[in-house]
Amino acid sequence: MGDIMTQADDSDLPSNWGRWGTEDELGTLNLITDEVRARAIAEARTGRWVPLAMPIKPASMLGGPFAPPAPSSPPVQQAMLYTGTPPMGMAEVLVVTPHDPGLTHLDAVAHMPVGGLVYPGRELTEAVTAAGVVHGSTTAFADGVVTRGVLLDLAPGDRLAAGHPVIGADLEAAETRGGVPLAPGDALVVRGGWTVSWDGGTPTPGMTVDAIAWMHQRGVSLYAGDIGDAFPPMDPQLPMPLHMVGLTRLGMPLIDGAQVDDLAAVCAELGRYAFLLTVAPPRLHGATGVPVNPLAIF
Amino acid sequence: MGDIMTQADDSDLPSNWGRWGTEDELGTLNLITDEVRARAIAEARTGRWVPLAMPIKPASMLGGPFAPPAPSSPPVQQAMLYTGTPPMGMAEVLVVTPHDPGLTHLDAVAHMPVGGLVYPGRELTEAVTAAGVVHGSTTAFADGVVTRGVLLDLAPGDRLAAGHPVIGADLEAAETRGGVPLAPGDALVVRGGWTVSWDGGTPTPGMTVDAIAWMHQRGVSLYAGDIGDAFPPMDPQLPMPLHMVGLTRLGMPLIDGAQVDDLAAVCAELGRYAFLLTVAPPRLHGATGVPVNPLAIF
Amino acid sequence: MGDIMTQADDSDLPSNWGRWGTEDELGTLNLITDEVRARAIAEARTGRWVPLAMPIKPASMLGGPFAPPAPSSPPVQQAMLYTGTPPMGMAEVLVVTPHDPGLTHLDAVAHMPVGGLVYPGRELTEAVTAAGVVHGSTTAFADGVVTRGVLLDLAPGDRLAAGHPVIGADLEAAETRGGVPLAPGDALVVRGGWTVSWDGGTPTPGMTVDAIAWMHQRGVSLYAGDIGDAFPPMDPQLPMPLHMVGLTRLGMPLIDGAQVDDLAAVCAELGRYAFLLTVAPPRLHGATGVPVNPLAIF
Amino acid sequence: MGDIMTQADDSDLPSNWGRWGTEDELGTLNLITDEVRARAIAEARTGRWVPLAMPIKPASMLGGPFAPPAPSSPPVQQAMLYTGTPPMGMAEVLVVTPHDPGLTHLDAVAHMPVGGLVYPGRELTEAVTAAGVVHGSTTAFADGVVTRGVLLDLAPGDRLAAGHPVIGADLEAAETRGGVPLAPGDALVVRGGWTVSWDGGTPTPGMTVDAIAWMHQRGVSLYAGDIGDAFPPMDPQLPMPLHMVGLTRLGMPLIDGAQVDDLAAVCAELGRYAFLLTVAPPRLHGATGVPVNPLAIF
Repeated sequence: MGDIMTQADDSDLPSNWGRWGTEDELGTLNLITDEVRARAIAEARTGRWVPLAMPIKPASMLGGPFAPPAPSSPPVQQAMLYTGTPPMGMAEVLVVTPHDPGLTHLDAVAHMPVGGLVYPGRELTEAVTAAGVVHGSTTAFADGVVTRGVLLDLAPGDRLAAGHPVIGADLEAAETRGGVPLAPGDALVVRGGWTVSWDGGTPTPGMTVDAIAWMHQRGVSLYAGDIGDAFPPMDPQLPMPLHMVGLTRLGMPLIDGAQVDDLAAVCAELGRYAFLLTVAPPRLHGATGVPVNPLAIF
Repeated sequence: MGDIMTQADDSDLPSNWGRWGTEDELGTLNLITDEVRARAIAEARTGRWVPLAMPIKPASMLGGPFAPPAPSSPPVQQAMLYTGTPPMGMAEVLVVTPHDPGLTHLDAVAHMPVGGLVYPGRELTEAVTAAGVVHGSTTAFADGVVTRGVLLDLAPGDRLAAGHPVIGADLEAAETRGGVPLAPGDALVVRGGWTVSWDGGTPTPGMTVDAIAWMHQRGVSLYAGDIGDAFPPMDPQLPMPLHMVGLTRLGMPLIDGAQVDDLAAVCAELGRYAFLLTVAPPRLHGATGVPVNPLAIF
Repeated sequence: MGDIMTQADDSDLPSNWGRWGTEDELGTLNLITDEVRARAIAEARTGRWVPLAMPIKPASMLGGPFAPPAPSSPPVQQAMLYTGTPPMGMAEVLVVTPHDPGLTHLDAVAHMPVGGLVYPGRELTEAVTAAGVVHGSTTAFADGVVTRGVLLDLAPGDRLAAGHPVIGADLEAAETRGGVPLAPGDALVVRGGWTVSWDGGTPTPGMTVDAIAWMHQRGVSLYAGDIGDAFPPMDPQLPMPLHMVGLTRLGMPLIDGAQVDDLAAVCAELGRYAFLLTVAPPRLHGATGVPVNPLAIF
Repeated sequence: MGDIMTQADDSDLPSNWGRWGTEDELGTLNLITDEVRARAIAEARTGRWVPLAMPIKPASMLGGPFAPPAPSSPPVQQAMLYTGTPPMGMAEVLVVTPHDPGLTHLDAVAHMPVGGLVYPGRELTEAVTAAGVVHGSTTAFADGVVTRGVLLDLAPGDRLAAGHPVIGADLEAAETRGGVPLAPGDALVVRGGWTVSWDGGTPTPGMTVDAIAWMHQRGVSLYAGDIGDAFPPMDPQLPMPLHMVGLTRLGMPLIDGAQVDDLAAVCAELGRYAFLLTVAPPRLHGATGVPVNPLAIF
């Protein structure tokens, strides 16, 4: 970890540490007021909707002669259960690794310690224990999130160049194209035209601190994107700015691995880039992340 | 299994087998038309919302000296992962048993074979394999469901008597009290004032075939309730009518273990019993059930 | 399943059903008497030993950016656990699929139902429940097995031809080569020179009913081999004779996926094909199979 | 962690760091020579044997209506698998937490970092990665261990007093009683008459540094006991001496949670306290611990 991040009071990086108190667990979700929700509802007119998660087929845990081999490192595994002969019901056990890049998931603010601290400046060891997360966990959004979403399509009909460092001006240009000014409390949905992947030979585009400062200035409550942090990192001193600054310093929950091509198509078709966004993962407390399928409702 | 259920063509029980073809996997979700969604959207006015899932704290998988003992048979278990020292990020593996009664979840239509058949009259062995579900799985609602929800509170401010057999007339009386007539495609949300539990000494209330016939007649698209099938069963010949008739014969997806007390309080406060309902589990294909946190949005 | 196997009293197939009573769970392990054990001990002279399990590296359950991708369908998965910073201790959770062909394991007699029955002629539904195995499980050998092992090398310095159907005469020829006559209660260790695999294009060799009848006649107590049932099956009417006759009708526990090349080399070097064999899986009750590392001690 | 343990070169504590080189992973298993094994074999005369693991019934992972609730924090969980109707075979997935005190298991030397170092003085981060253990793992004993075992019964026909601090003189007194002098390379099996448990109100007895120094002086290769480190700790500066000194500094693998009452009964009956000990866990590489059922063979 670079020196820059080992100091909690680094004044050059945007931060919300202390903004809502030292006990806060909501982070930028605090920005979603009744007024924001009313603005969100106003965007829902017909009930047409688009899911923002990648569809996922679990890998079978049944090896050998009984089933075909599963793909490697599957984010969700499934063991179909025996409930008798004839079966009483069909059921399964699922084994889930929420932060797998192949699974659309929502990061809790305690997911990423920086210099031994997590949002809002708490010692990691006070926030996360061997038995689960006690501060800054998925509890913060377990009840669900209802807000307005705005899509910024950074490369309409195309995709960003490999390794492109996204800056605030890129976001602002997309905002102008879409015609919907972001307002405080909105969820930001970003399309770069990439499928998030870590395999890769090809360097992915990613957010810079400049882009995150722009989000901070606009009051983004939640981030969802088909791009996030660049891989490989663009700056070894600050290898994952969206996570290390956006999540940890701003307390801005992140939806990693969103699938937004369908959304972009509908926005273009309808000519509007704002929508009601509902985010309702399983109502799980005490975790660092959880699978989610956000819905954009028009 | 009673004789009555071993014949697919039993004419005394309500059924949608064949109604939408022999390949259908949506079941009563077919009833949710654009018109229904528009009706749903019209109920969302302020953005106030209520989650319908039970909150759940995962049990730690770390035994022995490192962590306190977990409760028995936990529906979600969590193993916090080591990612290095200092940690790169905090993450976990989750082990989930979706159909656990302690976890609010959405049943796929293939969950419950009756007489060796699942919706819409398909041989179980053609629908469910050792490696997952190939017909009638969670794929049907993986994109999410957007519809109008209507709460029928069967015991306002109270709870149903133990072992009460819910009939159509009970539902109809609640509908009259609430003042919102159910229309085809609506999701039915039922409050009986019980926490679903299988431990129990006390017999729970539950749905009868008469109640399910009423749902069928009204065109319910989806069921969510804090009560479901009675336990112990009221009729040994047909021990789980909501599952064996509602899910299997009607193809009506069921949300088991919903928590609706908060919803009932808000409905009473606002004086309206209809709302926009969004149902967005993880976008998981090929399973028999999946945890979900439905949102009722006003 | 062929007709031949649907009748428990089929007189053409070898069987031990009833031989040790209707409640028996030990099967051919009953043949290991004090005398057999004394004979086994007499083979242990120096303490040199050879492990008969395939070594296995668990696949990491940590996906994404934190770890390299795991191979597909791994028999053992490992999630390294977070126990604090600094860590209190290093630990993991393991997820194991005992019957995976990539894992040397010991089959319990209830593993393979034939015509709805398991050893010794019990209804499957009375032996195996949704919550575990109540009759004929790993309990039978949970205390461990100590007996004499005899290696029959069917293809010294070579491997059997693809698809070779092993018959009693093949075993007998190897016995003569090795110079050690099998005696009742001995464990039979077979080398065919193959690595058990189900991927395969190439048909594997496998045991015939004739070979199993030979084992029965000789009083084999336990089978371990680098070959077992042929894949694809040689006889569609009786696709897995070692499992369907040897395990189910004889009640002879099977060690699938043994690795015996090292053993064969030591036997050849020492010029003796008998040894003390200890089989001590984790002392697990109520399962259908369990990983094991048998030791051949000279 | 007390200061005393933060210095690798602390000269007051027994240590084998460097004794077998800086790359060593075997630790005290290096002491098991051909001569030791021959001595071990000489103890095996009849083939009578005693298993040293606690029997374990896995907890069912099937919740709710299908199965009875499982006990809390089970060390082994079992999910019975659906393999079709009728089933092709009965199989399960097992979820195992090897270091659970309810499970007899063998600790690898990298299990317990002290002052950031593991045996033989290696940085933890070089020995253990998020994807598994790369130095000092279960690989060291994956091939199995064959040696002589000697039982020291510290409280024949009784149990040690609660909280008793075991010192070298206690071990020596038991050795004299048993009549078998420990020789280098022997495995030490200790009986204190306790069932290892962490629940406990009652303080357990445990090993002191003095006892471990005695083991070091005698050349113990492997430790197995029904007692180990005292809980609660006797010395806050050095809370787990058997693990922090015996495992980490001596590189002496530990079998936690052995069950030795049956062994003690047989030793008393036969009047001899030495035996052939075979230790053969699943042949698992790269883990910090693994379940095992050691066999004492007479």
